[in-house]
Amino acid sequence: MSRKRPPDRGPVEHRLHGELPVTDAETAAGRIHEDATVLTGGFGSVGYPKHVPLALADSDRNLGLTLVHSGNVGDEIDVALVESGAVARRSTYQFSAAARASTNRREIAFFDRNASSIADDVQYGGLVDPDVAVVEAVAVGEDWFVPSTSIGQVPAFVDAADDLVVELNREQPLELQALHDVYRPGAPPNREPVPLSDPGERIGRSSVRFAPEKLDAVVETDRSDSTYSFRDPTDDDLAIAANLGGFLVGEMERSPAFEDAVHLQFGVGSLGNALMGELGGLDFGGRDVVYFGELIQDGLLDMLDAGRLESASATALALTDAGQERLFDDVERYAEDVVMRPADVSNHPGLIDQFGVVGVNSAIEFDIYGNVNSTHVGGKRMINGVGGSGDFNRNSLVTVCALPSTHDDGAVSRVVPMTFHVDHTEHDVDVFVTEQGVADVRGLSPVERAASVIEECAHPSFRSDLHDYLESVREQDNHVPHDVERAAKWQE
Amino acid sequence: MSRKRPPDRGPVEHRLHGELPVTDAETAAGRIHEDATVLTGGFGSVGYPKHVPLALADSDRNLGLTLVHSGNVGDEIDVALVESGAVARRSTYQFSAAARASTNRREIAFFDRNASSIADDVQYGGLVDPDVAVVEAVAVGEDWFVPSTSIGQVPAFVDAADDLVVELNREQPLELQALHDVYRPGAPPNREPVPLSDPGERIGRSSVRFAPEKLDAVVETDRSDSTYSFRDPTDDDLAIAANLGGFLVGEMERSPAFEDAVHLQFGVGSLGNALMGELGGLDFGGRDVVYFGELIQDGLLDMLDAGRLESASATALALTDAGQERLFDDVERYAEDVVMRPADVSNHPGLIDQFGVVGVNSAIEFDIYGNVNSTHVGGKRMINGVGGSGDFNRNSLVTVCALPSTHDDGAVSRVVPMTFHVDHTEHDVDVFVTEQGVADVRGLSPVERAASVIEECAHPSFRSDLHDYLESVREQDNHVPHDVERAAKWQE
Repeated sequence: MSRKRPPDRGPVEHRLHGELPVTDAETAAGRIHEDATVLTGGFGSVGYPKHVPLALADSDRNLGLTLVHSGNVGDEIDVALVESGAVARRSTYQFSAAARASTNRREIAFFDRNASSIADDVQYGGLVDPDVAVVEAVAVGEDWFVPSTSIGQVPAFVDAADDLVVELNREQPLELQALHDVYRPGAPPNREPVPLSDPGERIGRSSVRFAPEKLDAVVETDRSDSTYSFRDPTDDDLAIAANLGGFLVGEMERSPAFEDAVHLQFGVGSLGNALMGELGGLDFGGRDVVYFGELIQDGLLDMLDAGRLESASATALALTDAGQERLFDDVERYAEDVVMRPADVSNHPGLIDQFGVVGVNSAIEFDIYGNVNSTHVGGKRMINGVGGSGDFNRNSLVTVCALPSTHDDGAVSRVVPMTFHVDHTEHDVDVFVTEQGVADVRGLSPVERAASVIEECAHPSFRSDLHDYLESVREQDNHVPHDVERAAKWQE
Repeated sequence: MSRKRPPDRGPVEHRLHGELPVTDAETAAGRIHEDATVLTGGFGSVGYPKHVPLALADSDRNLGLTLVHSGNVGDEIDVALVESGAVARRSTYQFSAAARASTNRREIAFFDRNASSIADDVQYGGLVDPDVAVVEAVAVGEDWFVPSTSIGQVPAFVDAADDLVVELNREQPLELQALHDVYRPGAPPNREPVPLSDPGERIGRSSVRFAPEKLDAVVETDRSDSTYSFRDPTDDDLAIAANLGGFLVGEMERSPAFEDAVHLQFGVGSLGNALMGELGGLDFGGRDVVYFGELIQDGLLDMLDAGRLESASATALALTDAGQERLFDDVERYAEDVVMRPADVSNHPGLIDQFGVVGVNSAIEFDIYGNVNSTHVGGKRMINGVGGSGDFNRNSLVTVCALPSTHDDGAVSRVVPMTFHVDHTEHDVDVFVTEQGVADVRGLSPVERAASVIEECAHPSFRSDLHDYLESVREQDNHVPHDVERAAKWQE
C-alpha cells in the first residue's frame, strides 16, 4: 500500500514557538463572555482542554455558556463545569452521572448530532453561532498548534470561532505529532473529495493552522487525561466475540469486497475492547486487517503488536493507563501504522463506503423489527449520546449491532417489541449479534426479522414472551404489526 | 464551471448493434427460473422493463420471485406482476394500491433500504443472491446498452447478476443517451472517491457495459412509461413554498457556503413539483442555482427554460406527459444542463456533503421532538418506502422537512406527539416547514424543539392539544418526556 507523506514543516522539537499570549487559566477564562458559545476539543474522553474549563467552573460570574464538542470529554468539563451551573446549552455526547442528571432534569438544553456532521453543522450549517474555540495542544506557534490525544472536530471549530484559547499540556508527549494527519476539506460547494485511498495513508499535516489574529490566550497545564478502565471480558463478551468471529469468517468467504482485506470498526467500551482483543485470535485467511474507526483502544495495540493489523485510523486514543503508557513509550513506532484524523475524516460517510467497512457497534436495545436505540432508556432518559454510531451504522457495507441480550443481571431484555427512541432505523442494520447467537436479517421483511431476532438473539428467559407478542399482532394486516400499549409495558 | 466530457464511443445512431439474442418476452421470461432473484431497472416510475414483467405475470408457472429495484416502477410490475402472485419477496419502494395491499397483508415479504445503498448492498453486501437483471434500453450492443428514462442502480445490478435481459424500447428516444453519465465506482476497499466536482459535470459514459456472456435475451417493445400527473398547486402548497422561500433567502445570507451558489434537492410529488415551480420566482441574489437530486420534475424544466437553473443532476425523469414531450423534443439542448446518473452517484452521501446541498423532503408526519416518519402510517401500515429521502436528510448541509400540517381535509394532524416509525431521526432534520410557518430547530433541545414545532408548524386546530400533551409530560425528569399511551391515541 502507498503511504505517501506530504511535506510538512518537519518535527516540532519545542513546546512554544514565537511570540505567544501566554497567560493563566483564570485570565483566559475571564475573557470568555457570560453567554458565549464555546467550542472545545476532546473526543473519547481525551485531548480536551482542562484548566480553562475548571477556571470557568470556579468563576463567580453568572455564566450561561453554550458548549459544543464532538465526542466525550473528561470530568473537568463533564462533571466540574456541568455541576457549576455555567453551561446553559450543550452538544454532543456526555459520559458522567452528573451530566446525565443535568440533561434529564433539563437544566442543560442538550442536543445530539452525529459525530461526522458536527464540523459542517457548526462551520456552515447554522447549528450554533460560535465565539471561541478552546483546545488542547502539545505544541503551539503563532498560527499553528499540534493537537494532543484526540483531534475530533477541532480544525473546523478553530476555523469557525472568532477567538482561540490553546491549552499547552506538558504532560502529553510532544511525539504525538507523529500520529496526526490533519486534512481540511474545503468549503461546500467547491469541496473536493477526501483524497484518501487507504486508512494508513497520510494526506495532511501534523498541526492545525489558524489565522494568527484569533489566538487570544495560551495557557500552560500539566493535567492528565481521564484514561479508560475496561473490565475483564465477561463470559457474555467472549460468547459475543465468538459469534461475531464466526459471522466474520463467513462474510469474508462470501463477498469479493473482502477478498484481499477486511476493514473493521468497533464501538468503544468494554465490549468493543473485548471484541478487538478476541478477534486478534481469528483466522483472517491471510487477508490484511485494517481498522477504520473512531477510537484506538488497547485491543488494537495488541493486534498491532502481534502483527495482525495492517493499520489503524481514528480520531482519538481511548486507552487505559497501561495502553497509554505503551503508546507514549513508543509513539514513533506506532505512528508507522496508526493515524489520527479529524472526525469529519475518520467518520466520513464517503470513506466508510469506499473502504467497505464492517461496522460493529453496541446499543441500549433493539427491537424485533430491527430498529436500534442507542441513546434514550425507555425512549426518554438520555444516557450518553449517539456519537459516531450513526455514521458507521448508516454507511458501513455490513452493519453489525452487537450487545448482550440482557442487562441488570438478566432482569431486562435488550431485545424488545418496540424501541421508543430510534437512532438507527430498520433500513440500516444488517446483522444482530448477542451471546445467544447471530440474526442475519438482510433481505428479510420486518416480521421475518422479528422471528429471526427472537430465535437467534433474545435471551431464553424472554424468548417466549417476545414470541407471544409477535403472535398477538400477527393477525393485523400491517407491514409492521404492533400493539403500542403492550409494547410500552416492556419499557416499564 | 468545468464540464469536461470524457471520450466515449460517440453518439449511437441505431437501436441494435451486432449479433444479439433477440427473442420475444415470453421466451425471455420462460428462462427465468421459478424462484429467481430478479433485479430490475426503474426509478421514479420510469425506465423500468415492461414486457418481460408482463410475461412473467401471465406465466402459468408457479413463480416465487425475489424482485429488487432501487426506485419505483410502473404498473406492469407494481400492479400486474404483484397481483399475479409471482413475487414472493420485494425491495424497495412501491407506489400502487395493489402493491401496498400485498405488502400490508404480508403476502409479499417487503423490505426497504435507502436508495443510495442498494447497489452495494446487492453487489457486495449480501442483501440478496442475484440471478438475472432485467433492464430497459434505447439501444443495445453485444457488451453495452444505453439506458432509457432512468438509470437507478442498473449498472451495479448488471454487474451483480449472472444473466441479463434487455428490453429495447423503441418508444423511448435514442437521444436520451445525451443525458446519461454512467460512472462506476470500483469495488471496496480500493474504491476511489467519485471524481465529481460539479453536478453538471460528466465523468462517465452514456452506456452501461457488461460482460457479453451475460446477455441472455433482447426483447423489443414499444410500451410507454407511466408518466406523472401533478395536481395544480393548492393554497397550502403555495403557502409552504412561500415559507420555504423566505427561509432560503435568510440561509443564503447567513452561510458562506451559499455565497456564490446554492445546491438544492426536492423530493418528488405534487408538493415538490409546486415548490420547484414557485422557487423559480425567488430572488437568489445572483447566485448560481444548481439541482443535485434524485428526480427531474417539470418544475426544473421551467427553471431551466427561464435561465434560472445552472444545471440539474438526477437519476430519473419524473415528468408529466407534457414535460416528457418537451424534453424529448429537445433532448440535445437540455443535455447541456441536465445529467442523469446512477443512483449511487445521484444520492451519494459524500457528494451531497461536498456540494452543501439544501435538501427538502416531505413525509407522512413528524413528531414534536423532530423524528420523521416517511413510510408507515400509525407506525404499522407501509405506504411507499423510504426511497432516497434518508440519503438527503442525513447528508444535506441543511435538511428541511416540508409538508402540509394536516391531511384528510384537515382531520388529521401531521404534527404528532410521537411517531411510532422513524425513518429520519431527531439527529438529522434542521428545519420544519408547513403552510403555518417555519420551525428552525437547529441547536434546540428536544423540549425546546417541541415548543417551536407546535407554535410554528402545527395547524391551529391541533395546537392546543399538542401543547397540552407537552405540558402533561413536562414534569418528568427526562430529556425526551413522553406518555406513550397518550401519544398512541393520536394514531388512532
